This record gives sequence, structure tokens and C-alpha cells, in this order.
Amino acid sequence: MKAAVLGAGYMGGAITFPLADNGVEVNLWGTWLDDGIMSKLRAGTHPKLNKSLPAGVELFLSTQLQQAVDGVDAVFMAVSSEGFLPVFSKFIQCRDIEGQTVFALTKGLVEYRGRIERISEAALGMYGERFGRKLPWVSVGGPVKAVELASHIPTLSVYAVSGATGFKKGSFQTPYYRISRQKDVCGVELCSAFKNVYAISLGICDGLYSGQGKEYHNFSSLLFNQAAEELKEIVGAAGGNKDTAYGGAGIGDLYVTSQSGRNRRYGELVGKGAGPDKAYREMFLAQEIAEGYHALKLGYDYVKRLGIENRLPLFGSLYDIIYRFGDPRKTLTAYTAGL
Amino acid sequence: MKAAVLGAGYMGGAITFPLADNGVEVNLWGTWLDDGIMSKLRAGTHPKLNKSLPAGVELFLSTQLQQAVDGVDAVFMAVSSEGFLPVFSKFIQCRDIEGQTVFALTKGLVEYRGRIERISEAALGMYGERFGRKLPWVSVGGPVKAVELASHIPTLSVYAVSGATGFKKGSFQTPYYRISRQKDVCGVELCSAFKNVYAISLGICDGLYSGQGKEYHNFSSLLFNQAAEELKEIVGAAGGNKDTAYGGAGIGDLYVTSQSGRNRRYGELVGKGAGPDKAYREMFLAQEIAEGYHALKLGYDYVKRLGIENRLPLFGSLYDIIYRFGDPRKTLTAYTAGL
Repeated sequence: MKAAVLGAGYMGGAITFPLADNGVEVNLWGTWLDDGIMSKLRAGTHPKLNKSLPAGVELFLSTQLQQAVDGVDAVFMAVSSEGFLPVFSKFIQCRDIEGQTVFALTKGLVEYRGRIERISEAALGMYGERFGRKLPWVSVGGPVKAVELASHIPTLSVYAVSGATGFKKGSFQTPYYRISRQKDVCGVELCSAFKNVYAISLGICDGLYSGQGKEYHNFSSLLFNQAAEELKEIVGAAGGNKDTAYGGAGIGDLYVTSQSGRNRRYGELVGKGAGPDKAYREMFLAQEIAEGYHALKLGYDYVKRLGIENRLPLFGSLYDIIYRFGDPRKTLTAYTAGL
Repeated sequence: MKAAVLGAGYMGGAITFPLADNGVEVNLWGTWLDDGIMSKLRAGTHPKLNKSLPAGVELFLSTQLQQAVDGVDAVFMAVSSEGFLPVFSKFIQCRDIEGQTVFALTKGLVEYRGRIERISEAALGMYGERFGRKLPWVSVGGPVKAVELASHIPTLSVYAVSGATGFKKGSFQTPYYRISRQKDVCGVELCSAFKNVYAISLGICDGLYSGQGKEYHNFSSLLFNQAAEELKEIVGAAGGNKDTAYGGAGIGDLYVTSQSGRNRRYGELVGKGAGPDKAYREMFLAQEIAEGYHALKLGYDYVKRLGIENRLPLFGSLYDIIYRFGDPRKTLTAYTAGL
């Protein structure tokens, strides 16, 4: 079996480990933003994961997309959500890719034809237009931090399958990389996108309370609970399976994202009093992109289109704090007292 | 309105804050194990919460149970799970207590007539025998750490109501103490008891990995996810509402318990290589009782009676580690690889 991994950042690098351990031949392609990573990889080390990739992983520069996808069975999309459509557009211009299954590690919502859509909706739309057939698609979610996966920390991942993918979980699974297979692409995608938003609330809570010598787990648990409730609402309203919100792609991924990571940290800065724009910019300049910041903006339009914005009080409070400069403490407290 | 709080430890002390803030007159009764606490309380400070209780809380010694429950509308049971039946037996020997609603803050399973039962089953059985009528009962669960509640950290609590209790959440709710009312006593009790067991697994994970300079949130999230799944199985098999496992009493309380507390710490000691008996004993001698240790033992009989032990692989692994001296790393890893 042969796979191409598009995007050589954290997750693109990390997924090569379970693939290689399964004897999958891996072509790793770096985007035009990954040139620095690729040159360090050629010298032997993945600069973000801070380790060598498995032996046998072949490296392809941004100009070599056609070569990278030639003859592969599976294409793992591992670019950022902003990078997804540009890279996917190039991918579907390549020759002889029909029948290849796309595994989307990329998370988030995208603007496609003037509407906010799930990434799979945009990808299947573009692919259908070009080839007149359905793209075999797998959305990959769950609590997977790339650095930990690359270190063989036991990990659960959720693969939501749509269409004739021929996917067998035994092909990618290892003792440390466990795969839960299901069918709810919509739910997995939405949980993956919106959990980044809710992780900001856990971070704000950290920022408001930490360093005062007091514990505040009651409050973080309350927020965690409410986030799970709201993920369920969103998934249900969008036509997915509500139970997905309570599986690995939902509460599992919410858990990992709330413990650490860029979205939590972004929230913490806001909770400590940094302006929401300023905090985002500072992290951005340090090459730390808090995806939840964008997901909150795109997600706001998305949930309004679904007509459920009034059933998401925590989401609404976050929008007030980040995009309407609501005072974090007052806004979160008012939200809490309204439960 | 007037309430008695039986048990003057962490939770008994903490619940007096929202009660007093609602103008409820509070009688706080200390058990025969609470004499030290009571004498410090008389001097002005609750020694575990490390602060004064609200003005107006009346203190009653262990010999004064009758006086403490005279004329109250509500009785909050805030003793340890081991202490529940002894205290409850004394309570139902008191005069003029018929019609008083019992609010159980106590969590856990108890042995009653040779079987492992939920606390409410035992209490309602004993009460029914004595009075020939149904005890008005509320099980109180959710992510509530006592010290945080006493510090007015925003907190969500779940009140599961059974029988003619006359309970209105407005009577106890405050801006920082939010109450979610529902009816699934069975589910709330089981989640409250079993989450202590599963918190041990998160602690073991901490013990196995911490201090190695590596993060391991993927693994803790996997365990968190599986714990939620298994709580759902247990509640469903026992006749409760499976959704309770995904609410405040389930994943909410699991979240708070996994972040901190005695059960997590107990697991951490085991994960670091302390023998499970020895670790329990050491904590016990420091007056830190890891309730999950007992809940695991009682719970094992309980789930076997339900016939679901084979649907709870993580629970089984924990039983192997704690009571059959299974190697923590090997046992948890084998469990993971079997998913």
C-alpha cells in the first residue's frame, strides 16, 4: 500500500509513524509554506516534532505534487484549514488520481462559494464538478496531538468514512494508534472544528483564575459540560449523529484540546486581560495559530444559518468576548448565572 | 426554610455557603468522627476548608442529632460513603422526621443485606421498613469540589429528584451555585460512585508518564473517552438513563475528578510503582481516603451482578491492576491495544 501525505507540519509528520509501522510506503509532500521544514527534514530532523521521520519516507517539494501522488492509494490531507482549499484544488488538477481515497486530517470550516461549509462539503463539491463522481472520503478526528503520536503515546483516532473508500482500519492501526471507525462525517468534522472554539473558554477560565492560589476545576468542568452539550446541538442541527459529540471526536478531542494546545493558550491570554485581537496577533507572530479564533467567526455564521444560535449560550458568550470585546469575567459569569 | 447538614467535613461545610446565601437556616451536625472539626469550628474556622462558615450556621455535636434535625425541611447527608448507613440509621430513629426530604451529597455503593446496592436503595429500604412510606429523596451529583464551592467558584450541581420532595432549585441556587434538576437517581448515583474508579485510571496514566518531559494527553483523552463509554454502559444496564453519563454527574464530575483530587492522586502513586495496597494505606494514614479504591471493589461485584463485566474493559483492567497486582503499564497498554 502507498500513501501521500500533503502538508509536512506537525500532523503531516506525525501520521507517517503509524503508516510506516504498517509497511505503508509514504510520500510526504511539503506545501509552498513548508520549504523550511523540508530542508531540515532532508538534513534528518523534523523541526516541529523534533525527531527523525521513519526510514523510507520519501520527501517531495511543493513543485512535485504530481510525483507525490502518483500511484498512491490514499491521500492524507494534513494542511491547515486555511490551506485546505488551495492545496485540494491543486490536488484535483493532478493526473490519475481518480479512485484515490482522501483522508482529511485538516479540521475546520471553510468559505466555499460564499457560504461557510464543512471541508468535506467543499471538497466533494469541487471533486464532483471535475470528475462527475463521488470522492471516497474519510474524515479523521479524535484526541490526537501530533507530537504525542510521533512519540508513540497511546492514541485514539476516529475515522468517519463516506463512499467507496476501501478503508480497512487494520491498514493503519498500530498498538499505540487505535482507530475507531464510524460513518458520521458531518459530526466528526463539526466536532473537530468547534472544539477549538470551546477550548478557548477553558483557556479563558485558566486565565481568569490561575495564579491566585485557588483551584477552579468546578468552573472548568461546568464549561466542559456545556461545551459537550453545545457540540451535540450543533451536530444534531446540521444533520449529523448527536452521539458523535460524546465520542472520541467530541468530548475526547475537547478534553485533549482543553488540557493544552494553542486554543487553550489563546483563551488564557484573553482571560488574563490581553485584547482578543492583540493576543491572536502575538501568537500568530510566534507562528502559533489559534484556529479556534477563526472557527468562532466562521462558526458564528454557520450556527446562524442553522438557526440555533440561541441554543448555544456558551458559544454566544465566547463570540461576545472575542469579537465584541465583552469583558471576559463579566461575560462568562453572566452566562453561568443564566444556566 | 430550615436545613440540617449531617457531616461536617469538606462537603458538609461547603454546602452551608449556598444554603446561607439563600436565607436557609442551617444546623450543621458533626459525626462522632468530626469532634476535632467541631471544636475548631467553635473557635471560628473550618479546618479543612480553611475559612469561617457563614454567620448563623448553628453547630451540633454528635450527641445532638435529634436537636439538629428538629423542625427542619431538608436533611443534607454529607458523610463519607462508609459513614452513610450508620448515620442514616441514627437519623431514622429520630422523632418527627417524617416528610423531611433527604439530599444525599454522599456518593458511592454500600453493602446492604448482603448485596452491593446504591445508597438510595439502602436508604429507601430502611426508611420504608420503619415508616411504611416512601422517603422523599434527592441525589446530588456533578462536578463540585467542596473547597471551590466554599470559595464561590462558579459550580454546576445535578439534583436528581425522586418522590414528593417539594424541592425547588431556586431555594438553593445562587449565582455561583447552579443547579440542574433531573429525575435519574440511579444514573446520578452510579456516575458519582464509578467516576472515582475511572479517575484512578487517569491518575495511573499521570504516574506512568509524568516527569519524563513528554506530554501524554492523547492517552488521558483515550481513557477519559472510554470511561464515559463505560459509565454509560453501567447506567444503562442498571436501569438508569444513559444520557446521565454525558451530563454534569457523568463527564462533568469525571472531568473534575480526573484533574485533581484523591482518586487521581492514588492512581498516580500506583502508576509510579507504589503497590496498590501500600499507596492506599499511606494516603489513609494521612487522612486522605481514595474512595475509588473501595468503589472499585464494591463496583466489581455490582457490575458482575448486572452481567456486564465483559463490556467494561477499562474497569476490568483497573481491577487487575489494583486487586490482582497487574503491572500498571502492561495492563493499561494491553487494554489500549485491544480497543
